[in-house]
Amino acid sequence: MKALHFTGNKTFDLQEVDHQPVLPGEVRLKVAYCGVCGTDVHIYHGAMAQRLSLPQVIGHEVSGEIDAVGEGVTGWQPGDRVTVRPLKPGPEMSVDNGVRHIGQNLKFIGIDTPGGMQQYWNVPAYTLHRLPDQLPLPIGALIEPLAVACHDVRLGDVKPGENVVIIGGGPIGMLVALVAKEKGANVLISEVNPTRLKLAESLKLATVNPKETDLVACVAEFTTGAMADVVFEVSGVQAGVTAMTALARVRGRIVMVAIHAEPKAVDLFRFFWRELKLIGARVYEPEDFEEAIALATSGSLPLDALITQVSPLADAQAVFETIDHNPAGMKYLLQCDA
Amino acid sequence: MKALHFTGNKTFDLQEVDHQPVLPGEVRLKVAYCGVCGTDVHIYHGAMAQRLSLPQVIGHEVSGEIDAVGEGVTGWQPGDRVTVRPLKPGPEMSVDNGVRHIGQNLKFIGIDTPGGMQQYWNVPAYTLHRLPDQLPLPIGALIEPLAVACHDVRLGDVKPGENVVIIGGGPIGMLVALVAKEKGANVLISEVNPTRLKLAESLKLATVNPKETDLVACVAEFTTGAMADVVFEVSGVQAGVTAMTALARVRGRIVMVAIHAEPKAVDLFRFFWRELKLIGARVYEPEDFEEAIALATSGSLPLDALITQVSPLADAQAVFETIDHNPAGMKYLLQCDA
Ligand SMILES: NC(=O)c1ccc[n+]([C@@H]2O[C@H](COP(=O)([O-])OP(=O)(O)OC[C@H]3O[C@@H](n4cnc5c(N)ncnc54)[C@H](O)[C@@H]3O)[C@@H](O)[C@H]2O)c1
Ligand SMILES: NC(=O)c1ccc[n+]([C@@H]2O[C@H](COP(=O)([O-])OP(=O)(O)OC[C@H]3O[C@@H](n4cnc5c(N)ncnc54)[C@H](O)[C@@H]3O)[C@@H](O)[C@H]2O)c1
Ligand SMILES: [Zn+2]
Ligand SMILES: [Zn+2]
Repeated sequence: MKALHFTGNKTFDLQEVDHQPVLPGEVRLKVAYCGVCGTDVHIYHGAMAQRLSLPQVIGHEVSGEIDAVGEGVTGWQPGDRVTVRPLKPGPEMSVDNGVRHIGQNLKFIGIDTPGGMQQYWNVPAYTLHRLPDQLPLPIGALIEPLAVACHDVRLGDVKPGENVVIIGGGPIGMLVALVAKEKGANVLISEVNPTRLKLAESLKLATVNPKETDLVACVAEFTTGAMADVVFEVSGVQAGVTAMTALARVRGRIVMVAIHAEPKAVDLFRFFWRELKLIGARVYEPEDFEEAIALATSGSLPLDALITQVSPLADAQAVFETIDHNPAGMKYLLQCDA
Repeated sequence: MKALHFTGNKTFDLQEVDHQPVLPGEVRLKVAYCGVCGTDVHIYHGAMAQRLSLPQVIGHEVSGEIDAVGEGVTGWQPGDRVTVRPLKPGPEMSVDNGVRHIGQNLKFIGIDTPGGMQQYWNVPAYTLHRLPDQLPLPIGALIEPLAVACHDVRLGDVKPGENVVIIGGGPIGMLVALVAKEKGANVLISEVNPTRLKLAESLKLATVNPKETDLVACVAEFTTGAMADVVFEVSGVQAGVTAMTALARVRGRIVMVAIHAEPKAVDLFRFFWRELKLIGARVYEPEDFEEAIALATSGSLPLDALITQVSPLADAQAVFETIDHNPAGMKYLLQCDA
């Protein structure tokens, strides 16, 4: 079988390796597609080196079919079409507060343990979610980021008719926008990249470029003065953090989706003055995967339009280089059974 | 009647003035006590000048008796013992989201309109809350800050048995601590002022001085590793903002009580990583006043111990100078009928 080894130094190496034995509680997947996540690009750039064991296979946005089932695994058969919720909880700590999907000892599969950019991949059976027959496997590789969006929208408690502003229209922000719209919200995306703005518009999402338009005035107009019930900060930049407090109405909710590596300046006065709420959101819980699969299967989201390119696993090096030079692309998929 | 005019420049002037006519919908109070709030001290220092009309009477932490009742006022009689919820809502805006106590056109009585540091004070009847006969009037002047604490604890949704850390043991932080403890929480106060630390200890509150002890380690020990379910940031300083995210467990709530005039550096990564919530809290709603009165009347809170000094209105200038030089004092009351 072929496995894509990341060897550090922005380099991938496609190697012929042996199948791993399927341990008790595991299944072996025949991987169909693996999406390239922003995290994978960070890894490519040298981030999170201390969490990897080089050479390592990365990737965690996977669709595929079960190839073999390990001892003690019930409810799954070879041939079942699945996606993977790439979380491996560790021993529970009291600081975890009983919240299983983000415990202190959580391992993220595809970073802390080998990932899905290979022909066959062994994962714990408890990570699997079933994909309906009518769901195309390329879309199956979008379920993981879509589950992120479902989690964010759920934690933001978005309700029909609410005004929602998404700051940052990358893959995650765009999916948050689509899910929030599906909930019946009035959605506006703030984004600075012209290509991404155009894509959003082609998906019938309202957009604003805060470099060209006064964002606060635009949101005031979009909401006829009400301002946002919910703001999603998905840009990861200071300008997004500055905007988020300015856009929320009294008792508005701000969902912190972006990963801000460094502390940022936050208008805490506005939190007091308008009794705002900031809600941190990280990955997903099983119900978010189920919701993502149901949404994707319903066909009501234009997910196809988010797939920029599908390439064979053998082209991975070129794909990462393309992403690096084209920040406007959305989802790049690697076809692992090609 | 006597009225204490703030004339700017750290100067108060006690003047003999005429009674104001009691307008329809108003009552005239015979003020018994008026507490000095941190806000009053800020005003004394020249802050919020654009909201005042000098010379102006300030003060908003009042107890007293009704002296006269204006046209159209029902349910109130001369002689009724009352305190004042010093909020005057203005025309409702759509950005207010139906939240009446912090609308954009809210006026704060005692800042935006004349306050209670005078012998007689006219206020809208809707601002009144009845004080039970057994509640001493000096304690009645503590109801307003106690209502702030009740609001904060309510928005923080503090539950029995939860671990609660209060950052900043000034009058507000101390009251938050007492209310949270009354709810059955395990409360720890972080404070740097030795006199305030001693006071907290004398009230049987657990304390830590973060200048002398590692705060994170202390909270870990206090909670046997669980860390805080709820953190109240009541210090208003960067060190408090830095600590708040470090002390909360997964899905912990952080209540932003302090007023941070300038943006502060916030660890947004931690909000994502532990799915923390930040909850802005401002003043109070009517139910918070009712809860504060009930709590104070029950006698279960050591409120007497928070009254540092009671002085006649005529000594106001000296009282503000004392506060200025003694940051360890807690509540200074002006006796307005003396
Ligand atoms: N919470 C989670 O579990 C989770 C999961 C996945 C990703 N993330 C994070 O979510 C964020 C978004 O992920 P992504 O893959 O979409 O990243 P991305 O970098 O592709 O998207 C960010 C977008 O913000 C836009 N942007 C930059 N400056 C802006 C500004 N001033 N105003 C508006 N938009 C601006 C960029 O043009 C870009 O399109 C990242 O921080 C990522 O780490 C979090
Ligand atoms: N949310 C509201 O509606 C509302 C109402 C009243 C007051 N406030 C605000 O609440 C805050 C507290 O009010 P207060 O009257 O008690 O003020 P205060 O200044 O008396 O109390 C702040 C306390 O924090 C302590 N402190 C300073 N540095 C610290 C540190 N590093 N760690 C721990 N403690 C530290 C100080 O020693 C002081 O005792 C202020 O910011 C005030 O403006 C808000
Ligand atoms: Zn991902
Ligand atoms: Zn006050």
